[in-house]
Amino acid sequence: MPRRSFSRRFLAGGAAAATFSPMALGAQPAEAHEVEAMEAEAMEAALEAEPAMAPGAPAKAPARAPAGGKVRRMKLYAEKLPGGRMGFGLAKGEATVPGPLIELTEGDTLHVEFENTMDVPVSLHVHGVDYATRSDGTKLNRSCVDPGEKRTYTWRTHTPGRRKDGSWRPGSAGYWHYHDHAVGTDHGTRGIHNGLYGAVVVRRKGDILPDKQFTLCFNDTVINNGPGHEGPNLRATLGDRVEIIMITHGRTYHTFHVHGHRWADNRTGILMGPDDPSRIIDNKITGPGDSFGFQIIAGENIGAGAWMYHCHVQSHADMGMSGLLLVSDSDGTLPGYEPHGLAGHGRRSRGR
Amino acid sequence: MPRRSFSRRFLAGGAAAATFSPMALGAQPAEAHEVEAMEAEAMEAALEAEPAMAPGAPAKAPARAPAGGKVRRMKLYAEKLPGGRMGFGLAKGEATVPGPLIELTEGDTLHVEFENTMDVPVSLHVHGVDYATRSDGTKLNRSCVDPGEKRTYTWRTHTPGRRKDGSWRPGSAGYWHYHDHAVGTDHGTRGIHNGLYGAVVVRRKGDILPDKQFTLCFNDTVINNGPGHEGPNLRATLGDRVEIIMITHGRTYHTFHVHGHRWADNRTGILMGPDDPSRIIDNKITGPGDSFGFQIIAGENIGAGAWMYHCHVQSHADMGMSGLLLVSDSDGTLPGYEPHGLAGHGRRSRGR
Amino acid sequence: MPRRSFSRRFLAGGAAAATFSPMALGAQPAEAHEVEAMEAEAMEAALEAEPAMAPGAPAKAPARAPAGGKVRRMKLYAEKLPGGRMGFGLAKGEATVPGPLIELTEGDTLHVEFENTMDVPVSLHVHGVDYATRSDGTKLNRSCVDPGEKRTYTWRTHTPGRRKDGSWRPGSAGYWHYHDHAVGTDHGTRGIHNGLYGAVVVRRKGDILPDKQFTLCFNDTVINNGPGHEGPNLRATLGDRVEIIMITHGRTYHTFHVHGHRWADNRTGILMGPDDPSRIIDNKITGPGDSFGFQIIAGENIGAGAWMYHCHVQSHADMGMSGLLLVSDSDGTLPGYEPHGLAGHGRRSRGR
Repeated sequence: MPRRSFSRRFLAGGAAAATFSPMALGAQPAEAHEVEAMEAEAMEAALEAEPAMAPGAPAKAPARAPAGGKVRRMKLYAEKLPGGRMGFGLAKGEATVPGPLIELTEGDTLHVEFENTMDVPVSLHVHGVDYATRSDGTKLNRSCVDPGEKRTYTWRTHTPGRRKDGSWRPGSAGYWHYHDHAVGTDHGTRGIHNGLYGAVVVRRKGDILPDKQFTLCFNDTVINNGPGHEGPNLRATLGDRVEIIMITHGRTYHTFHVHGHRWADNRTGILMGPDDPSRIIDNKITGPGDSFGFQIIAGENIGAGAWMYHCHVQSHADMGMSGLLLVSDSDGTLPGYEPHGLAGHGRRSRGR
Repeated sequence: MPRRSFSRRFLAGGAAAATFSPMALGAQPAEAHEVEAMEAEAMEAALEAEPAMAPGAPAKAPARAPAGGKVRRMKLYAEKLPGGRMGFGLAKGEATVPGPLIELTEGDTLHVEFENTMDVPVSLHVHGVDYATRSDGTKLNRSCVDPGEKRTYTWRTHTPGRRKDGSWRPGSAGYWHYHDHAVGTDHGTRGIHNGLYGAVVVRRKGDILPDKQFTLCFNDTVINNGPGHEGPNLRATLGDRVEIIMITHGRTYHTFHVHGHRWADNRTGILMGPDDPSRIIDNKITGPGDSFGFQIIAGENIGAGAWMYHCHVQSHADMGMSGLLLVSDSDGTLPGYEPHGLAGHGRRSRGR
Repeated sequence: MPRRSFSRRFLAGGAAAATFSPMALGAQPAEAHEVEAMEAEAMEAALEAEPAMAPGAPAKAPARAPAGGKVRRMKLYAEKLPGGRMGFGLAKGEATVPGPLIELTEGDTLHVEFENTMDVPVSLHVHGVDYATRSDGTKLNRSCVDPGEKRTYTWRTHTPGRRKDGSWRPGSAGYWHYHDHAVGTDHGTRGIHNGLYGAVVVRRKGDILPDKQFTLCFNDTVINNGPGHEGPNLRATLGDRVEIIMITHGRTYHTFHVHGHRWADNRTGILMGPDDPSRIIDNKITGPGDSFGFQIIAGENIGAGAWMYHCHVQSHADMGMSGLLLVSDSDGTLPGYEPHGLAGHGRRSRGR
């Protein structure tokens, strides 16, 4: 079953929009925000005496993706949302921005029974997977959907392997995305602008599965078509394996940065081992139509706390293209974070 | 011998500018563009019964690059072209935009006997290969060519290997490019704007050779300095190994996207095997001076049809920075494609 | 000890700002800048007769990084500089732009005893390494420093290895950077604009150490906040292992290009060996907050001379975002370079 991605609707009535009181937590490094420099040094000296600080190191073996090969069906609806937005949803009246996160494993086939509940033609175009021209989601290939109509789009995926000619064929695994390709222009510029996009993750058998997932889309200068320019707050517990799928849309380039966490610039965002030459990064340039994903261990080596993510283009950051990765300690407390104390970061949490 | 790249001249009188009639083709997935969703599902069910659909899978072993080490000579002319364009050509009166595709193998040396037939100084600057300062193609290094003058530029290449100091020296293989560095400004801004650029491919011994090659240059908001903003249509047959060399010039960033096909973000665009951690992508951010290349199997797993490629920056796509990869079935038909039926995609084909 | 990065102060009274006379150097390829094409070909024929031209090939084994694990302390001061600039320095009155290059080895801990000598709050935010929220350098985490105050920031690093859960944890090695996150806006937009940035290199045990190091920051359309838009000239001797750490700041994207030299697009800029699939590049798109680094052998395979580096965005190059890598022969001469002979490249050298 496709899991639900971050959804504003889902959160509106939820307890997830909690606020946190600052509190001290013993010898954890993150609690010392008010101590003076000399005290901080004393604490550091104590920490150095501990051979293995390593807060957040996960202990139990992570879950891994099973083999694919299933034929799956899902319904997807394109709908109008308040405020001029448009969204995709798994049921009528449940559209969100971003749309549902769709997860497949290499070898799976997915039939998306798509219905257009809006008053303009819309389509479903996907990156990364295999589809015939009639599932292209373009006017060119007559695969858009008129108002009130339905269409089944079929996405196939395949495992890596050697072709008959001896060359290597890559598998479908990757952090991909889907979007409208019809509203406003033949490239779906208005539909994308209004929120018609979502993430697709195709796993390889054996890929590590995350504990939490978040989709973030830098859509021109808004994030996930949220209010103002700000992004949702992402909530996790120290040691959680957090997966972020990052999509860019519109006509603007961005640089995606997270404080205190970093990832490998490769297929999974996780190094394959000591021989993997990929660069480890915490800032990545990205342009419209790009998508990438990665997993981080929340607070690993650094502890619980409120960690910013933001576009590092200074003018974008300053207009508010920013959100928080809120990493709670195992007892649920979030050291040093005052949600209403700081302009621009004290807003209502919108993470799930 | 350097092969000819995409050339408008070559096509002007050619039969390549064919038009295609839509027609049904039996059980191929791409023919179903007009069927309703329910019929499509029935067809999909039939396809699922086939264990190995895999349209486009090549069967015969691909040709591979032999060892390099040759000393080669070629002539290259800089010429004015109609419409304010400028181009490089292998003979007088034969300049094209992009200029000729130049292919080398690691170890080769190339002497380019260059002649400036224009009325302004011009130069030949190359990326990726080895050249002394006198082959730099810059005013700084006194290696530009006055009107009516000639100059021999020498490009060397080398194989990878271990240096005497034990460190690893990379080889010259890559998807590179050449361009003017003198017309208009000391950085060749006017020369590049007008069309003075072309691709250089340096192979490694054993690299897989393509069946078809296309050079695409996103030069500010035009492609290959073609009319309007649109790009050439690229013609291939299902299963062809198609190589695309993508260059960016000017002052604008872009994202290059192809529908239905994807490649590895590494040296060759082809994964080295199961341990290659490179990301598989179908959308890549690129800026001026960048070049990359890749090979795709036309229609692999997806079938014949008209597949768009375009800049995914929405404003660029909407102004027409787009073209088609036209993948014909083995019988020469192109299912579902009506060249004159769709605004913006019904133009005269300009692919070879 | 942290080494000093490129520093304008350091150079002001130094002999490094030398000028070079053009002179011929026997059979080196770079001396032929004035010969005619036919003579050049004759020389090339001679070179082809030499089986191993390879100028610049280093012979002695390079130094390599020892194991880390040290606890280190350094002082860092934020200061105002003439011309509205701001800088970081290792001692009062010694601030530079970029700030000091800070080098660590995986396993090291660094305590930065930071003092704000300016009249506005400032902070120290770092990319890539491990730090608790109180070393975040943000207003959000109350880790900025008021005028006249001090604060100790602690950066930790770690080696790669397997987690208890069996997954692979990447090490801290990389080409990172630090910058203000407080002056002007909560994202430090004014502080960064004025020069509050510097490079951090974290080595892995065994990483090859360079002979010379240069930090270059494309900060909107200036380089290292230098005069005009131009960058410093970088001086090296043929065969030197030159390390360039490249940072981007501001709100503008760039493409970094070096003539005649190239690097691997991976963690170190050096291929790990024949199975490393990384692309070899000489032009890289980069946006604000990005950093990368690489090592090149000065003049390898191409000889001594003046080699341009510049932003390849044509409008940026034309406004002067350019500098020179000045590679002298072993006798100290720099063939073919006339420092005052060419507009835009005849300026006073500002490389160390």
